[in-house]
Amino acid sequence: MHVGEKHYRTLWPKSERSAVLQIIDQRQLPHDFVIEDLPDVAATAEAIADMHVRGAGLIGATAAYGMYQAACEGRDLQKAGEFLMATRPTAMNLQWAVERMQAAAADGRDLYEEAMAVADEDAAWCRRIGEHGFELIRNIAASKPAGEPVNVLTHCNAGWLAFVDHGSATAPIYRAHDEGIDIHVWVDETRPRYQGAQLTKWELMQEGVPCTLITDNTGGHLMQHGMVDLCLVGSDRTTRGGDVGNKIGTYLKALAAFDNAVPFYAAMPSSTIDWNIVDGIKDIPIEQRGDHEVLRARGLWRNEIVEPLLAPEGAVAANYAFDVTPSRLVTGIITERGIAEPTEAGLYEMFPERNQG
Amino acid sequence: MHVGEKHYRTLWPKSERSAVLQIIDQRQLPHDFVIEDLPDVAATAEAIADMHVRGAGLIGATAAYGMYQAACEGRDLQKAGEFLMATRPTAMNLQWAVERMQAAAADGRDLYEEAMAVADEDAAWCRRIGEHGFELIRNIAASKPAGEPVNVLTHCNAGWLAFVDHGSATAPIYRAHDEGIDIHVWVDETRPRYQGAQLTKWELMQEGVPCTLITDNTGGHLMQHGMVDLCLVGSDRTTRGGDVGNKIGTYLKALAAFDNAVPFYAAMPSSTIDWNIVDGIKDIPIEQRGDHEVLRARGLWRNEIVEPLLAPEGAVAANYAFDVTPSRLVTGIITERGIAEPTEAGLYEMFPERNQG
Repeated sequence: MHVGEKHYRTLWPKSERSAVLQIIDQRQLPHDFVIEDLPDVAATAEAIADMHVRGAGLIGATAAYGMYQAACEGRDLQKAGEFLMATRPTAMNLQWAVERMQAAAADGRDLYEEAMAVADEDAAWCRRIGEHGFELIRNIAASKPAGEPVNVLTHCNAGWLAFVDHGSATAPIYRAHDEGIDIHVWVDETRPRYQGAQLTKWELMQEGVPCTLITDNTGGHLMQHGMVDLCLVGSDRTTRGGDVGNKIGTYLKALAAFDNAVPFYAAMPSSTIDWNIVDGIKDIPIEQRGDHEVLRARGLWRNEIVEPLLAPEGAVAANYAFDVTPSRLVTGIITERGIAEPTEAGLYEMFPERNQG
Repeated sequence: MHVGEKHYRTLWPKSERSAVLQIIDQRQLPHDFVIEDLPDVAATAEAIADMHVRGAGLIGATAAYGMYQAACEGRDLQKAGEFLMATRPTAMNLQWAVERMQAAAADGRDLYEEAMAVADEDAAWCRRIGEHGFELIRNIAASKPAGEPVNVLTHCNAGWLAFVDHGSATAPIYRAHDEGIDIHVWVDETRPRYQGAQLTKWELMQEGVPCTLITDNTGGHLMQHGMVDLCLVGSDRTTRGGDVGNKIGTYLKALAAFDNAVPFYAAMPSSTIDWNIVDGIKDIPIEQRGDHEVLRARGLWRNEIVEPLLAPEGAVAANYAFDVTPSRLVTGIITERGIAEPTEAGLYEMFPERNQG
């Protein structure tokens, strides 16, 4: 997508077959646009853990390249995979990408080509998610009085910055905007790390999509008052039963959508689906991160990035990074193949090759 | 309640019958404890509008004193009341206190004594709310295995800082803590103004009540996992039908509580009940505040209070300050007279003198 006039993906090799991976250091957004070199798998793992890169598809594509780096360094790919997978336990795409690279190595395939394929497929899948989700938005637009925008609410960043390109939740939005549909996005700021305020808001503004920043507390009120037509979120791990693991707070928005009959869709490539589990509340591992993310904000003050303390000195905080939205609250799951019912039957119907039963 | 070893209320006359009101400037908490002089009704109105003082009961008691100041200044009390009421449109206690002072003036009563009575009654009512709410907590404690604390989740600040003393939602917590019940509080930080992080966390720590700060996104996850026994919130305006207007985001927590069978109580003195309306979603006015509260954080950085920008330059934001929790999601309303059903019948049963029907 665009940064100013220029097209970017979120990661690319420094040069053909280089062991150096280049990424956008997302910790610096929206105030600075910084490209960072990741020279080896250790740097890549640290960039994932410290969230220089984050988001379902991008973590997967970065980890795939990390496995190529590990191979360049002559490392054991079993251990390198474990090392990478330990960085973000909730992220299904991380596990998926590492296992795919290990299988490619076992088959004797070219790991550089495989890492490039992971990135290219991620971008292609997101583009197709955009096509399927666009149908939803077009139908809503057709049902609204002329001159009224389609109001979409999103949480966290499931934008192009969370993937290789296009995004999952944002792909239908960008497609609708390109098609000339009048669309407006309510952007949850997404505490504690403000991915909505700092990433989603930034990328929507770069693409010229009208959008309004709100606190995470606000969506329920908007839905009570008919100000949201559609909730569109991403996922970090979805079970084959349709339970959606996503950024903490997603469940609260799904409850409000259900209570106000607002459709609630999760958009994801199939690489986010964990086919081994059904019950997300029981079986999706929930990452806990450091308390400083809750105790402090992070923003721009007098041309400097500052991290002020929000709470009293000595305050205790907890930081659960994800929650699980039960499938009963999900209207549908938008995948690269189409929109699935959020049930085992619905997901197997769309991905029959996964049904080993 | 306590600040260090000393007992404070949230407001007091500078001296007997003084026109100068003294308050704790809550914008400086938790990093500084600053007492501010409000010399006249104009300063008092500004202190309410800019949230030097905030919270249901405290806004009422401050406005009552403001009416005394207006009388000292020889002002028209009708106009002074309108001026004060325009500062915070959602706050029922503001309207209630102004009308009470106007009635006292019409009856020829001493306005200083009346303003003192408003403050004293607020403190007494909150103490009684603490007694009634304590019964709930004691029953939960009795039903839990030994050694497990009662986990209470609260949103925003309905603590002593929001009233004259004790608080509404916190009064039962302080009482339980005093009685030796093992209690732990999950404190929602409460964006955009962080009243949870900056006020509730501070006052609970001053009283030695164990508590953990969480983002506003977190409560649903905790309730799904059995980590919350009771939600206790305050209210800025509750209808006679039991719809609870409170800080934005309260509705989302009520939905999560209902979905997980966690009891959800709103605690308030009867001065918060608007007997003229039934349907809160339709009829409770929702204050919209400036977008800078959403676009910026506020905290302590290198011994200075800073307000860093969280979003891209030029970002648009919306700031709805309150939402309404429908009575169907409310387990009960804890008042100074006892715990009422959140229905017209339940509230009239507890306050029969209000039933004009």
